[in-house]
Amino acid sequence: MLYFENDYSEGAHPKILQRLMDTNMEHLSGYGSDRYTDLAKNKIRDLCKCPEAEVYFLVGGTQTNQTVIDSVLKSYEGVIAAETGHVSVHEAGAIEFTGHKVLTLPQHDGKLCARELKDYMETFLGDDSHEHMVFPGMVYISHPTEYGTLYTKDELKELSQVCRRFKLPLYMDGARLITGLACPENELSLPDIADLCDIFYIGGTKAGALCGEAVVFTKNNTPAHFLTQIKQHGALLAKGRLCGIQFDALFSDDLYKENGRNAIETAALLREGLRQKGYTFYNNSPTNQLFLVMENSRLEELKNDVVYSFWEKADDTHTVIRFATSWATSREDVEKLLSLL
Amino acid sequence: MLYFENDYSEGAHPKILQRLMDTNMEHLSGYGSDRYTDLAKNKIRDLCKCPEAEVYFLVGGTQTNQTVIDSVLKSYEGVIAAETGHVSVHEAGAIEFTGHKVLTLPQHDGKLCARELKDYMETFLGDDSHEHMVFPGMVYISHPTEYGTLYTKDELKELSQVCRRFKLPLYMDGARLITGLACPENELSLPDIADLCDIFYIGGTKAGALCGEAVVFTKNNTPAHFLTQIKQHGALLAKGRLCGIQFDALFSDDLYKENGRNAIETAALLREGLRQKGYTFYNNSPTNQLFLVMENSRLEELKNDVVYSFWEKADDTHTVIRFATSWATSREDVEKLLSLL
Amino acid sequence: MLYFENDYSEGAHPKILQRLMDTNMEHLSGYGSDRYTDLAKNKIRDLCKCPEAEVYFLVGGTQTNQTVIDSVLKSYEGVIAAETGHVSVHEAGAIEFTGHKVLTLPQHDGKLCARELKDYMETFLGDDSHEHMVFPGMVYISHPTEYGTLYTKDELKELSQVCRRFKLPLYMDGARLITGLACPENELSLPDIADLCDIFYIGGTKAGALCGEAVVFTKNNTPAHFLTQIKQHGALLAKGRLCGIQFDALFSDDLYKENGRNAIETAALLREGLRQKGYTFYNNSPTNQLFLVMENSRLEELKNDVVYSFWEKADDTHTVIRFATSWATSREDVEKLLSLL
Amino acid sequence: MLYFENDYSEGAHPKILQRLMDTNMEHLSGYGSDRYTDLAKNKIRDLCKCPEAEVYFLVGGTQTNQTVIDSVLKSYEGVIAAETGHVSVHEAGAIEFTGHKVLTLPQHDGKLCARELKDYMETFLGDDSHEHMVFPGMVYISHPTEYGTLYTKDELKELSQVCRRFKLPLYMDGARLITGLACPENELSLPDIADLCDIFYIGGTKAGALCGEAVVFTKNNTPAHFLTQIKQHGALLAKGRLCGIQFDALFSDDLYKENGRNAIETAALLREGLRQKGYTFYNNSPTNQLFLVMENSRLEELKNDVVYSFWEKADDTHTVIRFATSWATSREDVEKLLSLL
Repeated sequence: MLYFENDYSEGAHPKILQRLMDTNMEHLSGYGSDRYTDLAKNKIRDLCKCPEAEVYFLVGGTQTNQTVIDSVLKSYEGVIAAETGHVSVHEAGAIEFTGHKVLTLPQHDGKLCARELKDYMETFLGDDSHEHMVFPGMVYISHPTEYGTLYTKDELKELSQVCRRFKLPLYMDGARLITGLACPENELSLPDIADLCDIFYIGGTKAGALCGEAVVFTKNNTPAHFLTQIKQHGALLAKGRLCGIQFDALFSDDLYKENGRNAIETAALLREGLRQKGYTFYNNSPTNQLFLVMENSRLEELKNDVVYSFWEKADDTHTVIRFATSWATSREDVEKLLSLL
Repeated sequence: MLYFENDYSEGAHPKILQRLMDTNMEHLSGYGSDRYTDLAKNKIRDLCKCPEAEVYFLVGGTQTNQTVIDSVLKSYEGVIAAETGHVSVHEAGAIEFTGHKVLTLPQHDGKLCARELKDYMETFLGDDSHEHMVFPGMVYISHPTEYGTLYTKDELKELSQVCRRFKLPLYMDGARLITGLACPENELSLPDIADLCDIFYIGGTKAGALCGEAVVFTKNNTPAHFLTQIKQHGALLAKGRLCGIQFDALFSDDLYKENGRNAIETAALLREGLRQKGYTFYNNSPTNQLFLVMENSRLEELKNDVVYSFWEKADDTHTVIRFATSWATSREDVEKLLSLL
Repeated sequence: MLYFENDYSEGAHPKILQRLMDTNMEHLSGYGSDRYTDLAKNKIRDLCKCPEAEVYFLVGGTQTNQTVIDSVLKSYEGVIAAETGHVSVHEAGAIEFTGHKVLTLPQHDGKLCARELKDYMETFLGDDSHEHMVFPGMVYISHPTEYGTLYTKDELKELSQVCRRFKLPLYMDGARLITGLACPENELSLPDIADLCDIFYIGGTKAGALCGEAVVFTKNNTPAHFLTQIKQHGALLAKGRLCGIQFDALFSDDLYKENGRNAIETAALLREGLRQKGYTFYNNSPTNQLFLVMENSRLEELKNDVVYSFWEKADDTHTVIRFATSWATSREDVEKLLSLL
Repeated sequence: MLYFENDYSEGAHPKILQRLMDTNMEHLSGYGSDRYTDLAKNKIRDLCKCPEAEVYFLVGGTQTNQTVIDSVLKSYEGVIAAETGHVSVHEAGAIEFTGHKVLTLPQHDGKLCARELKDYMETFLGDDSHEHMVFPGMVYISHPTEYGTLYTKDELKELSQVCRRFKLPLYMDGARLITGLACPENELSLPDIADLCDIFYIGGTKAGALCGEAVVFTKNNTPAHFLTQIKQHGALLAKGRLCGIQFDALFSDDLYKENGRNAIETAALLREGLRQKGYTFYNNSPTNQLFLVMENSRLEELKNDVVYSFWEKADDTHTVIRFATSWATSREDVEKLLSLL
């Protein structure tokens, strides 16, 4: 069986596991106060060229979005997101659970448009009854998006400008950021992101860690008593070392680059093969998620050999599916997959 | 100055105030356990031809929507509403405040479409990842809608059928129901509504009461310990008599009909006058809210003589405004308004 | 039947109802933006000798506590209250519903002790693990308390000093404040309270209004977008005039004093009569709530003639009950009650 | 430096890490749907002699308490706990964050008393105003408690009986259950606990796993759509294998017994040594947490050589501290510690 279902179906990159082994019996203080966590924070600050960045490690993506968004927003504010944003669709209402509305704007290849954001804010502020409405309090984007697409540097700059004009913190969900960074089409470096965003997170789970997401507050803007707020959200790990050590390993010897590159290169190989075979792409994703429109009958056969993700119904006889590659995907498996298609 | 801003800018119908006067010094027990509240409940049961109906009185519309929706939904469920639904747009996030997402569907003249609801539910249930999404747990509609429109009997029947098929309680926001009932175009009687909906409320505030909304559970489906839940939402009135007596008066001697009729008849007079003068209507509302597309320059002049509601920007030189009539609107004021237009 | 069950079993003082009558057909804008509401706010500012006070009217006491406390606290903070505080015991968890813990301290005649508050804060701050605990974010007291008792001026000063030292806003629940003000034993004037407290509310419901509580922020400390937060909590009245007009009447011609005085004087008459008859008082309440320890057998007989409140079981054969007087209690009824006892 | 600060300052038992290594490159489906998670669930069912048990794995203790309690309680209910219960004191308000009150009863060596629980319930139900109060909806206990103490079988039976009589689900926080099970004084086996409790969790974090807690619903009582509720609470791990594999290892070859035993045996050695040296114990904990009353001056010296936990101030010159042992504590370290004391 071939596995292209997602980018989190293996454990951790062996170097990360090895680091957990090597440090295993050290006595370390809990809740993220250990020295490996500090080392990892420093590496992130350096890579972002943002010495004032404050970094926290949480366990998973939904948890991170929930904790960050709830802590940053005032109680009467909501978060603006593309209608396809993960926080809007696939987090089981985790944001609303904390009392905040997700205010949706149209998506364009999974992305928010700066001009539409500006129009939205102007309409909101110009509405006589806006005191009876949810105040927009921050902006959520994902990069790469849920559709595998990337913001250009200009797009992010424009979004960032609109956000600053309206005093909206800009938050980037980087669940697949490490993969995105390795993509030739990507225009945004970590320092760019640290500069243009107020908060972002670098996902570990989909980049070869067992778990863990690194939240970066780039503008001396960590919410007050954030550790307490993490605890209150049930998100504080007793053995904080588990995240700290993994991120320290991920950012040692450019392991994060190696992991991202493998995902991107195997995706490129698969994309090229699919193109040659004339498959219909649902969109133009340059990263490690490939979306195809397939005939249902063809999919029925494929199921016996390949694990893929159902994305959505296209029409009565076609379905959109996703193949994902990861740090762990081998070229051999891509070739086997292509030989089946 | 002429007042067509909304349908709640006067106090109460004099008969309602008189009833408060007449009963004022009676000693009555608190929290809705008094006999006037019981009388009002019985009148509502009778009018709905629904002897098993359970009735509760709350103070305002947003409070009612918040308390009912939160009490009916399970914690992981959201409420489906038209994208223009009051709960989605104009309640300052009161639903999300209680932890629930408002799941929006397209609006058609402010209404939900049964077929689209069915498609939505089938797509949801057919989605492999729906366990990661908010479960639709009830359906919210308003009648008349926020756009003054009315569901036909067939439309409500179809919605009700889809709701039952998917075990979704159907909840009708009747903030302006009493006005709707008086409209010649209205096809839905109180017994129809009690039959087709699982929960609805009859608004008092916009029908000539000082405050108060009557929530009706029609299917032996009152949430457990609903009084406690009302209290928990800060919505339990110590002097419950204030709502009970007013609703008792509203449903005595057909006062509710009289109030609804005045709103509808003055609206009809205004609509006809506006038509004759060639004004552009934004939509085709048969009830007491009239939406017009007006030139901004014309509105500037009008401001000196008339209070109206800004609705939304139509384009750079035009604005959508609303004129509302009520139980208290006089034909003279309508004629004066028409003479100004 | 005699009614001494509570201080909210009648409607409104006739002068208040009359004012609602007199203003009934005036067109007034909604949501508290009318001129009667403004008049009432000015009267409160004057009485408090606090020209910078910001005043808001809400409908009921639990709603007021819920909205104020949730709006003032940061999301990771709780409110300190006496273990007998209304917010802790009798509001169906309305505070926790908004995500905040009620942190309880011992009660002394229903009151918080400044020294115990100081010790609590020092212990909290001295605890190594306090980042894992709920941060105390404000202090709730009631005056008169749930037990009818009053803070002395020294007691409130000391509390206020401790609060300021620890930057804890001090909030007074004045559900029965108007009655308290009329009590000869009361040492605290409205200006004292406005000076020593950061926020307080003056209850209308128990002082002769149909409903309504006036929240006063005394230190330019109204929470941001408080109107939106009121709406979000379901607590914004469309016909805001209902509260504004009533409070305007209550603070005209010293009506509030008259109402408070009647409650206090009839309570004094009842207290003296009970004393002479040798009844056992549960505590030493100088205000309009009298708590007695009665034999259960005696209570069984009394039930036929008098409505009183069960307070708590004293022992197997005795019960604590409460008699309450109000603005509406007549001396005749007190005498009748005494003749029965 | 000697480390006796807590029982989570090392990584994982080497056998657990090794299992993560061995399975690392297997492709497994996400969110706990993998076969190792199934194996772990079956092992827990077998050990509990409860074939119908439903088992879920969460990441940490506070998260588990928050998710379980919020999912089990109805929205108007609270959870009863000892005043020293972890959920009441040391979870930063995680329970209140989800809208529920923690209703506290007195603690006796950290334990709830069945008779007091019964009295509490009878008083609650007998209170005329209990509809205005938080309904008790479940009972939380910890075993071992926060004070290292254990419920006897009789104590748990009595608690369980009272809970059943009042239809209160009984929930046991077993953060240190594996340690408790290894204690000679412990009377409660896993089958006993599965029989007497409705829900409990077996802590992995403090028993030699990197993270992970196993929640067991023993009475076909898993909350509806619990997976969705876990996700909504931000508690669903993408790589669910991380918990599944660790618990599979922990329950293979009696590793959990080995880990518990080491913690208990090293604690016994330390306890005996302390006793011989005449140290004052704060309480009589038979498990791996030892609480001592120490002179502050002595503690100042000790700090240079030993890491321990501050517990609370005893008086002006004494402090209560905690030494904790774990699966990783060596006899040599205990002896070194004793030589210092």
